[in-house]
Amino acid sequence: MATPVQAVEVIKVGRYAPESKPDLVVAEEPLEIRIGHGPEDNREQFSLSVTMRTPGNDEELCLGFLYTEGIINSMEEVISVTYCEDLGRTEGMENLMRVELKPFVEISNEQFKRNFYTTSSCGVCGKASIDSIKVTCNPLSGESIHVTKELLFGLPDKLRDAQVVFEHTGGLHASGLFDVHGTLIAHHEDVGRHNALDKLVGSRLMTDRTVFPKSILVLSGRISFELVQKALRSGIQIIAAVGAPSSLAVNLAEEFGMTLVGFLKGDRFNIYTGKERIVL
Amino acid sequence: MATPVQAVEVIKVGRYAPESKPDLVVAEEPLEIRIGHGPEDNREQFSLSVTMRTPGNDEELCLGFLYTEGIINSMEEVISVTYCEDLGRTEGMENLMRVELKPFVEISNEQFKRNFYTTSSCGVCGKASIDSIKVTCNPLSGESIHVTKELLFGLPDKLRDAQVVFEHTGGLHASGLFDVHGTLIAHHEDVGRHNALDKLVGSRLMTDRTVFPKSILVLSGRISFELVQKALRSGIQIIAAVGAPSSLAVNLAEEFGMTLVGFLKGDRFNIYTGKERIVL
Repeated sequence: MATPVQAVEVIKVGRYAPESKPDLVVAEEPLEIRIGHGPEDNREQFSLSVTMRTPGNDEELCLGFLYTEGIINSMEEVISVTYCEDLGRTEGMENLMRVELKPFVEISNEQFKRNFYTTSSCGVCGKASIDSIKVTCNPLSGESIHVTKELLFGLPDKLRDAQVVFEHTGGLHASGLFDVHGTLIAHHEDVGRHNALDKLVGSRLMTDRTVFPKSILVLSGRISFELVQKALRSGIQIIAAVGAPSSLAVNLAEEFGMTLVGFLKGDRFNIYTGKERIVL
Repeated sequence: MATPVQAVEVIKVGRYAPESKPDLVVAEEPLEIRIGHGPEDNREQFSLSVTMRTPGNDEELCLGFLYTEGIINSMEEVISVTYCEDLGRTEGMENLMRVELKPFVEISNEQFKRNFYTTSSCGVCGKASIDSIKVTCNPLSGESIHVTKELLFGLPDKLRDAQVVFEHTGGLHASGLFDVHGTLIAHHEDVGRHNALDKLVGSRLMTDRTVFPKSILVLSGRISFELVQKALRSGIQIIAAVGAPSSLAVNLAEEFGMTLVGFLKGDRFNIYTGKERIVL
């Protein structure tokens, strides 16, 4: 059974005599995602990506990944998500997931060359050419949300309080979704930032079948291009992160009219784009 | 001309009135690496990977990547590394590099499916199957090095002092190489941890044509499986990181007899594996 932590024996070294103690490290395991049209359909099947992730919520991870990468547009396109048993061995079985899609969903090698491959903290990686990096994102639509600076100040602590595995290992990234009143709707942790976000998106798809109407995405770390892309694909209007954004993250948020807040710590933050959603 | 930072205008929000100020963010741009056997050779050419990286030291990044992923074993196998001009446009040219390898170096689609794809902070990602994750690493050979705990205590500050871009953007990972006397030999920064290490490895290959005899690798962040794998491939005996290691990082270091130190901050750290190299 996969667990999010692994017990290890460490030697704690400080100014005084070293001590050997039991400790926990965050689990990191590869997950291969395969997609097909079900066992009766003899069209081609594909190994979509291998990502290094923290075991747990793998179903959410697969669905979130397929959604944020633009392979599926809703849960209506999915037949099932299961651990793969056709490996001819039991060991490692929990590191292989298979998503069966409805017959009408087109999956082709060409599309994958265009879209993938993914990773535990980048997501863009290995896509077969630079021109193909932008997954199609629609402009943000619907009514704009507004939040006060005081509401934002409090979000990182709420997310941190909800993190279970980080507490024990110090080795995880977290993604949390808050409503406009500052209430935590859902959150996920993973050794890879992208996986944490994909798990969050996947969990919303599984629960509500819609993604993120009118909510704020809080990230425990830095903001990369790919995180902004995945958030845009999910209709998120505001990203607020504890860490720094990259140039491409700022440029993409600007282009699509998303609000990007970074260095959110204590009672301060920087607004990079979309200031009209923050009441100052 | 590619630069490691981008100027932005931010709104600084705190308890008092918000201020609009110029600021810098770390640059993040995709880099596609292509390899071939030179223009006269009509064997196939390959697009090897696209990684999100901070522009600068792209030659080092390409060479380090090819080396740590096991595509090349030495500089003797390389003819040239140049920005690609066959794109039919000038825009984006600095995001495409082409490495020409000597005729005897085998490059095949099969090998790449086995080996890649890479990313700005994972590196394993997208490899076409789980079984293929481990790039061939030889056991560490040669005389073992030994360092005192006091020497290790001082290394993160030395690395931080050498970091130029982090100072301005807060958005970068660093990899530094130190000798057994605690002297910084070389260091590199990047928006992706893997790229910082690949740039470091590549810079050593270009300078000394050997990689890391008897040195200590210091990482500014967490230790993933793939970072350990890349370090092993480079013959590194000790990794000392400011952050936490993952389970797979610990397991791999253990298997190959590497020393893994984590949570190196102030006058304390944890030894996860290979304690015999640390004089306590």
